[in-house]
Amino acid sequence: MSRASNKEMMGEEFLDKGALQEGSLQDPSVWNPSVERVSERVPLPVAVMIGAGRVASHLAPEWHRKGIRFKQVYSRTEESASALARQLDAEAVTCIEELTDEADLFVVSVSDDALQQLLPRLLKGREKSLWIHTAGSVPMQIFQGKAERYGVLYPMQTFSKSCEVDFSKVSLFVEASSEAELCHLKRWASLLSPHVYEADSQKRKALHVAAVVTCNFVNHLFTLADEWLTQNGLPFEAMCPLIDETARKVHTLSPQEAQTGPAVRGDRKIVEEHLHLLESNPNLQHLYRLLSESIMQTHGQ
Amino acid sequence: MSRASNKEMMGEEFLDKGALQEGSLQDPSVWNPSVERVSERVPLPVAVMIGAGRVASHLAPEWHRKGIRFKQVYSRTEESASALARQLDAEAVTCIEELTDEADLFVVSVSDDALQQLLPRLLKGREKSLWIHTAGSVPMQIFQGKAERYGVLYPMQTFSKSCEVDFSKVSLFVEASSEAELCHLKRWASLLSPHVYEADSQKRKALHVAAVVTCNFVNHLFTLADEWLTQNGLPFEAMCPLIDETARKVHTLSPQEAQTGPAVRGDRKIVEEHLHLLESNPNLQHLYRLLSESIMQTHGQ
Repeated sequence: MSRASNKEMMGEEFLDKGALQEGSLQDPSVWNPSVERVSERVPLPVAVMIGAGRVASHLAPEWHRKGIRFKQVYSRTEESASALARQLDAEAVTCIEELTDEADLFVVSVSDDALQQLLPRLLKGREKSLWIHTAGSVPMQIFQGKAERYGVLYPMQTFSKSCEVDFSKVSLFVEASSEAELCHLKRWASLLSPHVYEADSQKRKALHVAAVVTCNFVNHLFTLADEWLTQNGLPFEAMCPLIDETARKVHTLSPQEAQTGPAVRGDRKIVEEHLHLLESNPNLQHLYRLLSESIMQTHGQ
Repeated sequence: MSRASNKEMMGEEFLDKGALQEGSLQDPSVWNPSVERVSERVPLPVAVMIGAGRVASHLAPEWHRKGIRFKQVYSRTEESASALARQLDAEAVTCIEELTDEADLFVVSVSDDALQQLLPRLLKGREKSLWIHTAGSVPMQIFQGKAERYGVLYPMQTFSKSCEVDFSKVSLFVEASSEAELCHLKRWASLLSPHVYEADSQKRKALHVAAVVTCNFVNHLFTLADEWLTQNGLPFEAMCPLIDETARKVHTLSPQEAQTGPAVRGDRKIVEEHLHLLESNPNLQHLYRLLSESIMQTHGQ
């Protein structure tokens, strides 16, 4: 712990977490869950939040509720820095020069491009603190040579500003520059969710691809369906029970087993009829054709 | 009611449903919900189930639990006819010649092709009963000239044989050849779910397209993500919290508002990196490119 924590924490803010969650795994040797039992007490850090976007404004308040003290929030704009800082009882700063160097943990949640640009200035004079970022596809080694202790905490979730997230259901993937830092990071992560896993930068990138496919692309299909329904005078909300059931089924069936619909039945007549109906929607029509062909190919139709 | 119901129902099996569910709608004039209050008692039909596939084996047992008596189950194979008939305390038949002509309601849940082929033989001598099918994309007029009273009950849900369905959360779309039949059908449908809506054949087909997009295609994206994760030594189950949240968000946000991810942020660097990673998966790579472009186009990136 840095000077800040020694001075400020008064020995009270400790995390005594008996065990981290054991994920049930297909191949523990490659997946590497956090299974060891830990008895020692791990102090909570004094932290600084760099960024006030979607991830930052969900992650920092949740950590704050769990007892982590945020000293400052940095954002380029006064408005977003202040909005998040108020929630955290922290100071809002908009200049890197105003950033404290007395914090144990710096959490960087900014766009991947901003991360690249800001890091040298952010880290200068703050090399002794623990630095983490929260991005799915940025390697941990971005910190190498710039900080002494560093890591990643990737919350695999879709964060919308106006929508509360139940963090206890979020999968968190951690990685760190040393065993000691990994140990700290896992314990702090376990304040947020019982689902804490280790994943190196390569695995995290593979997870990010899967997250784009299962969340961002899925939501875009909802968007295209919404447009289509509106054109036909039908409300999107009628789809919600079906959407919920589609999500629920893959908790107990593999997606392969859960597949239903005209394409997996090889019902080419319905597929062609739907393609004909979609003639006024060339974008959705093209995706309909490709996805139906992909289903038929996967299921040997 | 036909002779069968007069003889067999003993005046006991009545549905006294105060009101059908009122859907909250964008445009009631085109969407036409079932909103009228009904005070008269509507007798339950004596029914025959034609088909023993996924929809039949979810729908018939649920109606049976709600008091509708099934006299027979027809399927081409003895095994599936018997399995469903046992659940319904009904007779299993595998020849159309063995089908009773003494039933109020014939429910046809077979593949769209089988429906076309079987209908003339099924209906001959049974023209006075009410005939319904359960398909999304088959027009009600398939019964015209063959039956006197007919309709459609389309349960918009994904039915897997090994997965129980909570019918009270299923949206049901009904259509019938006359007001009287529509009235009966709505009441019997309301035994299954409070979400009963009227939809003509054209609207039902548009709903079916939307169901394919939001359920079948979404589940196929899960399948492709599962394959990708397996290749990378990662378990699909790690995606479940994200999948659940993606479904949950569109209950309160429009899909447009709920969109997140690299494409909607215009983060082309991450998109290109992911495409590079997917080089060994040309099918998923192609879909990744198209869906990312479609997101960027939709959101003006």
